[in-house]
Amino acid sequence: MKIIVLRNGTIYTLNPSQPVAQALAIRGERIIAVGDEATVRAAAGPQSEVIDLHGRAVVPGLTDAHVHIVLHGLARQQVRLTGCADFTAALDQIAVAAQRLPPGAWLRGNGWDHTLWGGCWPTRADLDRVCPDRPAMLDRKDGHSLWVNSRVLELAGITAATPDPDGGQIQRDEHGEPTGILLETAMELVRAIMPPPTRAERLAALRLAINEALSYGLTSLHVPPATNPADGPDTLIDLQALRAAGDLTIRVLVHIAGAHLDHAIGLGLRSGLGDDWLRIGGLKLFADGSLGSESAHMLAPYEGRDHTGIAVIPPAEMKEIVTRANAHGISVVVHAIGDAANRSVLDAIAAARPTAAHLALPNRIEHAQILAPTDIPRFAELGVIASMQPIHCTADMAMAERLWGTRCTTSYAWRSLLNAGATLAFGSDAPVETLDPWAGIHAATTRQTTDGTPVNGWYPEQRLTVAEALAAYCIGPAITEAAAERKGRLMPGMLADLAVLNNDPFQIPVSHLYTVHAELTIVGGTIVFERN
Amino acid sequence: MKIIVLRNGTIYTLNPSQPVAQALAIRGERIIAVGDEATVRAAAGPQSEVIDLHGRAVVPGLTDAHVHIVLHGLARQQVRLTGCADFTAALDQIAVAAQRLPPGAWLRGNGWDHTLWGGCWPTRADLDRVCPDRPAMLDRKDGHSLWVNSRVLELAGITAATPDPDGGQIQRDEHGEPTGILLETAMELVRAIMPPPTRAERLAALRLAINEALSYGLTSLHVPPATNPADGPDTLIDLQALRAAGDLTIRVLVHIAGAHLDHAIGLGLRSGLGDDWLRIGGLKLFADGSLGSESAHMLAPYEGRDHTGIAVIPPAEMKEIVTRANAHGISVVVHAIGDAANRSVLDAIAAARPTAAHLALPNRIEHAQILAPTDIPRFAELGVIASMQPIHCTADMAMAERLWGTRCTTSYAWRSLLNAGATLAFGSDAPVETLDPWAGIHAATTRQTTDGTPVNGWYPEQRLTVAEALAAYCIGPAITEAAAERKGRLMPGMLADLAVLNNDPFQIPVSHLYTVHAELTIVGGTIVFERN
Repeated sequence: MKIIVLRNGTIYTLNPSQPVAQALAIRGERIIAVGDEATVRAAAGPQSEVIDLHGRAVVPGLTDAHVHIVLHGLARQQVRLTGCADFTAALDQIAVAAQRLPPGAWLRGNGWDHTLWGGCWPTRADLDRVCPDRPAMLDRKDGHSLWVNSRVLELAGITAATPDPDGGQIQRDEHGEPTGILLETAMELVRAIMPPPTRAERLAALRLAINEALSYGLTSLHVPPATNPADGPDTLIDLQALRAAGDLTIRVLVHIAGAHLDHAIGLGLRSGLGDDWLRIGGLKLFADGSLGSESAHMLAPYEGRDHTGIAVIPPAEMKEIVTRANAHGISVVVHAIGDAANRSVLDAIAAARPTAAHLALPNRIEHAQILAPTDIPRFAELGVIASMQPIHCTADMAMAERLWGTRCTTSYAWRSLLNAGATLAFGSDAPVETLDPWAGIHAATTRQTTDGTPVNGWYPEQRLTVAEALAAYCIGPAITEAAAERKGRLMPGMLADLAVLNNDPFQIPVSHLYTVHAELTIVGGTIVFERN
Repeated sequence: MKIIVLRNGTIYTLNPSQPVAQALAIRGERIIAVGDEATVRAAAGPQSEVIDLHGRAVVPGLTDAHVHIVLHGLARQQVRLTGCADFTAALDQIAVAAQRLPPGAWLRGNGWDHTLWGGCWPTRADLDRVCPDRPAMLDRKDGHSLWVNSRVLELAGITAATPDPDGGQIQRDEHGEPTGILLETAMELVRAIMPPPTRAERLAALRLAINEALSYGLTSLHVPPATNPADGPDTLIDLQALRAAGDLTIRVLVHIAGAHLDHAIGLGLRSGLGDDWLRIGGLKLFADGSLGSESAHMLAPYEGRDHTGIAVIPPAEMKEIVTRANAHGISVVVHAIGDAANRSVLDAIAAARPTAAHLALPNRIEHAQILAPTDIPRFAELGVIASMQPIHCTADMAMAERLWGTRCTTSYAWRSLLNAGATLAFGSDAPVETLDPWAGIHAATTRQTTDGTPVNGWYPEQRLTVAEALAAYCIGPAITEAAAERKGRLMPGMLADLAVLNNDPFQIPVSHLYTVHAELTIVGGTIVFERN
């Protein structure tokens, strides 16, 4: 069995009884020794492969506890023209992307802005030059117009004879021929015929997203099922397919769609079934909507509004569903943003307790963005994991301030939750926000955007230390998977999941934490990412 | 990590390049060295625990590829009075059993015969003496009468005032009081109120059955779901509960009930999900009935009959279901006894091929008791596993002879299947037959009952060698689980699943193979059974 020794590093183990070490040995998929170089080399024996860390920092592999990994990959696959001011460069980018796609696949893109290109609208002829043989469609940055090539117009049956639909416009040239720009409702003519991603496209998206995750030092992911129940259980199928192909290089916990509770009960499936590469999580439910759409469910009205948002699953029904799931050994994973939504979920979990079966995995609340102060201790009391995404805090703080006012004292309240004994499991919510966990660690420790706004951090009393934030990406998620004895810390016997970093997160200023990334990522003793 | 060295043995590895070794070393859950003692000790290092085998034989852990493990345990939990001619001894046996049961559990028993006890019927008073405080019911050996205690009569509301039901009789004493014997339809008065086994009883049954399995050297089981879909997915739930309790000491592949295909598809569950302890198998279906009930589906009428049995799932429907399952990555596990049933399944699997998804586990036919000669090569051609139970052959050969006549040339035709390239996976079908795999190996190699009948074996040209039969309990099932690189042979890197035997199966006469059992059984490097 292969033995690897990592030497000459600064190894942050997250193990309190041996916080820092210089060397670490791996045999097969597990760590066999951690300590000074002499001890580790002795344990490893003479047959080992030695990697010189050149003093670099090593941390346990991180977990993203909330990532829509297939959607992230699909978004990544699209050509992104955001901020691209050079039209020729934009076309080059499209040409390169078109050549990489499998035969027949649509080219998708987004982010273009013709005001950066001199104000002239691009045309299908421009697109045809770089992507003649496959359908190509690119959303404008505002999502209100679509740039398509001739192949798309042909497939959609859009010709000079096609009338403009109500509320929309097909841009036309001087001969009445469509130019390739579709505005507002005219975009629907294309969306109606746009194929959903094929299995191959989904798998390619998944590979892309996993490689990106590994490049940050992520080694485990917790993945919600497709948000739309009509999308079916594709994520689980995709992951099983990727695994069958021998390409699953990151560990995944995948949740069950709320609509599939009867299926899980019917099969007798309980949370936790699976292995260290692919495991079934809990039942994904939605208690409310979002902050931005003012549909997060609040105990009191939004600032300056007379409404309190929407209880997507009302409290009485929430109790029924959570009770039923927990009684069958299925833990719940509930999206709850507003304080009323969070209270509803905590109440439901409390109500489910008397009839709950053994839960292999704990119940959890996803986001938990704003909490009534009295609900904060209940996470620890009820054993509910607080699965939060620090980047939402700094991305949304202005909006939160405006819509929640002084209630923000207990919004994104990781410090309060941690002090009250809750387990934190941090994630990204990608593709909604960046997949980069170091952006999350930066947000959790500074509560500032990368430009340092606001100066002392937003509600700075909620900041975490780097060690606490890192633990919320390593140990917290491992507890959430009931895998804390195998993952999250670097100790003998643990799975060899770790990342060698470009910068030492404990040495650089916290304001620079977002610059950290992995140079080498190891999962189960195998090098799965190495930066060139 | 714990290191164990087994030395001074005759280790049959089933590895053709090193068939026999003297020593073997285990580190953690895996084998790290196999060979002569010096080599193995060198690989193990000085810190190892050494077990002296005293020359005994070691084989890879066996798999029972078809066992109703919960039902077997439940049957084992009942008091068995078969052949017991001493009434006092029978009561003692009941008393001991009653004390072992959890509070409130019903005492169940079977096999008693009052003609062996002087001809007097036993009474509730007899039972009350040894089992006063819990309901007790024991089926007579013929299943036509029931012996119950006063608690059962009370629960069933059976008093002197209860009239005899049509077709039944409540035995009464000279005062008209029920004596505790219920005949024919009167038994239904009790069966109607008899509780199904509780979760605790089911788990106790499972523990009992698993320990029995380990005592034969079995280390893996393939378990069909509850036969009656109304029984639900209890087996999977039980296994997950046992595992949660830390008590799953044997590896289990558990199949999906045919009625649950939609659930599996809905969830996106594919065969093979799970880990080395608990894994989801294929979809269990029934193509036909049984030999004894003349419902096995035959191409030509039963001997002396004008019927051909019953296609439980007719061929057209079989094609639809198998196609649908295979298209969703779910392999099938189809009960097929008769030659027509087997052909129907082979045809269905062939028809499913063009649209089949990647199958992590191969399709399989359970029993395959009689095959048309032209269908024998199709198992290998289609990659269908022949999952057979050798003990059915010797238990049923007289009946097979009577009902199938000369067609028996290709019944229980493991030699023909093996020669045609099929993978054999042997099992017991317990509790229908004994769980003991050595009884199966004896049947497979002799085609005789343990008393040596018939003299040269029944259709002796179908006999296997000991090595072939053992491989069908070790390597074949591992192939069936897509785990042949981890299980089934004793080689470095493989899971340390093995059995130390009382007798060397390659040295004793084949007529004595049924006397073999395990003295020590190791699963994943842990000693899980040791004979006192």
